[in-house]
Amino acid sequence: PKSKLPASGVTIFTQMSALAQLHQAINLSQGFPDFDGPRYLQERLAWHVARGANQYAPMTGAQPLREAISRKTAELYGWLPDADSEVTVTAGATEALYAAITALVRTGDEVICFDPSYDSYAPAIELAGGVVKRLALQPPHFRVDWDAFKNMLTPKTRMVILNTPHNPTATLWQQSDFVQLWQAIADQEIYVLSDEVYEHICFAPEGHASVLAHEALRERAVAVSSFGKTYHMTGWKVGYCVAPAAISVEIRKIHQYLTFSVNTPAQLALADMLEAEPEHYRTLPAFYQAKRDRFVKALAASRLEVLPCSGTYFLLADYSAISDMDDVSFCRWLTAEQGVAAIPLSVFCADPFPHKLIRLCFAKQEATLDAAAERLVKL
Amino acid sequence: PKSKLPASGVTIFTQMSALAQLHQAINLSQGFPDFDGPRYLQERLAWHVARGANQYAPMTGAQPLREAISRKTAELYGWLPDADSEVTVTAGATEALYAAITALVRTGDEVICFDPSYDSYAPAIELAGGVVKRLALQPPHFRVDWDAFKNMLTPKTRMVILNTPHNPTATLWQQSDFVQLWQAIADQEIYVLSDEVYEHICFAPEGHASVLAHEALRERAVAVSSFGKTYHMTGWKVGYCVAPAAISVEIRKIHQYLTFSVNTPAQLALADMLEAEPEHYRTLPAFYQAKRDRFVKALAASRLEVLPCSGTYFLLADYSAISDMDDVSFCRWLTAEQGVAAIPLSVFCADPFPHKLIRLCFAKQEATLDAAAERLVKL
Ligand SMILES: CSCCC(=O)C(=O)O
Ligand SMILES: CSCCC(=O)C(=O)O
Repeated sequence: PKSKLPASGVTIFTQMSALAQLHQAINLSQGFPDFDGPRYLQERLAWHVARGANQYAPMTGAQPLREAISRKTAELYGWLPDADSEVTVTAGATEALYAAITALVRTGDEVICFDPSYDSYAPAIELAGGVVKRLALQPPHFRVDWDAFKNMLTPKTRMVILNTPHNPTATLWQQSDFVQLWQAIADQEIYVLSDEVYEHICFAPEGHASVLAHEALRERAVAVSSFGKTYHMTGWKVGYCVAPAAISVEIRKIHQYLTFSVNTPAQLALADMLEAEPEHYRTLPAFYQAKRDRFVKALAASRLEVLPCSGTYFLLADYSAISDMDDVSFCRWLTAEQGVAAIPLSVFCADPFPHKLIRLCFAKQEATLDAAAERLVKL
Repeated sequence: PKSKLPASGVTIFTQMSALAQLHQAINLSQGFPDFDGPRYLQERLAWHVARGANQYAPMTGAQPLREAISRKTAELYGWLPDADSEVTVTAGATEALYAAITALVRTGDEVICFDPSYDSYAPAIELAGGVVKRLALQPPHFRVDWDAFKNMLTPKTRMVILNTPHNPTATLWQQSDFVQLWQAIADQEIYVLSDEVYEHICFAPEGHASVLAHEALRERAVAVSSFGKTYHMTGWKVGYCVAPAAISVEIRKIHQYLTFSVNTPAQLALADMLEAEPEHYRTLPAFYQAKRDRFVKALAASRLEVLPCSGTYFLLADYSAISDMDDVSFCRWLTAEQGVAAIPLSVFCADPFPHKLIRLCFAKQEATLDAAAERLVKL
């Protein structure tokens, strides 16, 4: 068949994880922990399965989970979304992103993305008939140039997709960015899709700035998050989105034909976890900051130059002192010859990306990070 | 926002299950068992979770599950699909259907569906820009009129979607139907999407006829199935599709941006189950036939006229001896006033459906079926 996504191959995450396995490399490429989530969460899953909670969950998500998400949102961002009409549980954050884009973008609509950007946005936009407009951000801070942003707006602009804490650059949006965004788009019907899956892995003293904390923006925003990152269970595939009722109605119309509902026992176990240990996510910044700091310290002895890392479990490193290779070649070489798998940054960018940057995942045990650093220091 | 699916509300399954709950009715509407799946499957899930198999599965599905699916396919339908390139695990059969339609249907393409048809096909086609062409089938046998079918073909026909055993009519395709289908479409590039989620709930002596058993058709077919129905775990949301490599590549491109991967421990538990008890699905026809027969026998005392039921865990009943109401009103009344929830058949049809038919799910414990029959006999 003629491809609907001719430019897409298998994603870089699949490629690099496979290459890492082939070469028995330490896998710091695809983002997932090499340690396990809370025992309590696992026990609750087994409990719900054993008690027979194995049939379809409600299409919008299990009631206790939607309520827990709603309470958490109020606590963190000062706004209580309605659990029945404004919170929707999805098969991972990826499905929430896809459903939101499909629900809101039509043929010819323009969607502004900030490059580097996560690899699922553009294909979803293209499949919806939309046109991707990319604003390239520059290292090391990857801040949005708001004048450049305003110049990209046209009457066809329908959506802006942002991601904070940002994968792959580990940078954050400030509240002032949301203020600038609002000023730029207030007088047009433009939706904001805010990918906040790393909301709880944020090292800034002022904490994570969510689109949901901005009163005006949240009237037209879809905030997407996930439990995989927060509870070290990326394979459970439970995510969600929060959006005003009128937008949620449209997202749910897509969701119900896309997956209909999400794994029931996993939803109920997560609801129990949120109820029993609401402080878990408050411990995450310190937990991950310790890993980041240990890894960064070990890499200080290497010829990699580590960029500032304010959130996510990724960090960027510049390898120009080590090699002239382009980043894809460098990552293949690093995996195959040096035993450490990483992600080349150019794959997150549509335009040629003239930097020599790789992304390393530090959601790993200390021993893994130490072993990887030992290899990287030798380069 | 302006709706991308203006004609869609919340699906009938969500509506009727909610109404059933509100009125404490016996819920024979949405299709799911009121009993649990194999204990072994539950134990394997808990085991995989406890041993830490909680991170992303491979995008295409966990290797042992793809291999088990491949072996099962060979055993049942005489063809061994390649586990690496021709089997893809999805977040339920619904995602497989959506991904296949999105991968293969383009703007202006025509897709032939047989009415009544499952409610997720048409929205997925519309979102892909396709045009739904419906061939209405007639009770009680709902057989395809192949001359009428041939008359619907145009140069724009790109896909045919069929479902056997058929939800909601409980009828089957025969091998001869596949032969007719092939004769009709052989000389055009038309894909066949075969929804076979009830493949193991088939009461015909000759068994289930799969598109995968037809050598020529399977070269351009996508067969979709699911574990929810087979293992009484509709809430686990693990489905899959089997398709030639060139088609699977395109479906996977969609799948990887739609959900990326599927719940890891559920996949591994299902692989264990298929390995340990390959005979489980062979016991399903007798298991469900006993329920069907018990229920049909009990309904013989009612004024409902039960139609022949050759597969699925649904049966159709004609209520014209009881009421003049249209089927939607009748189902609401039946749920609210008589305490039995059912699904009106017209919701599966685009054209006005002049019959008085309801769908009843008999995937229920004997006590549930008996209690429901007691109420239905009083009508
Ligand atoms: C969905 S697999 C990729 C995981 C991830 O988010 C990443 O590595 O960036
Ligand atoms: C996906 S919810 C509906 C379950 C089902 O397949 C049906 O009741 O027809």
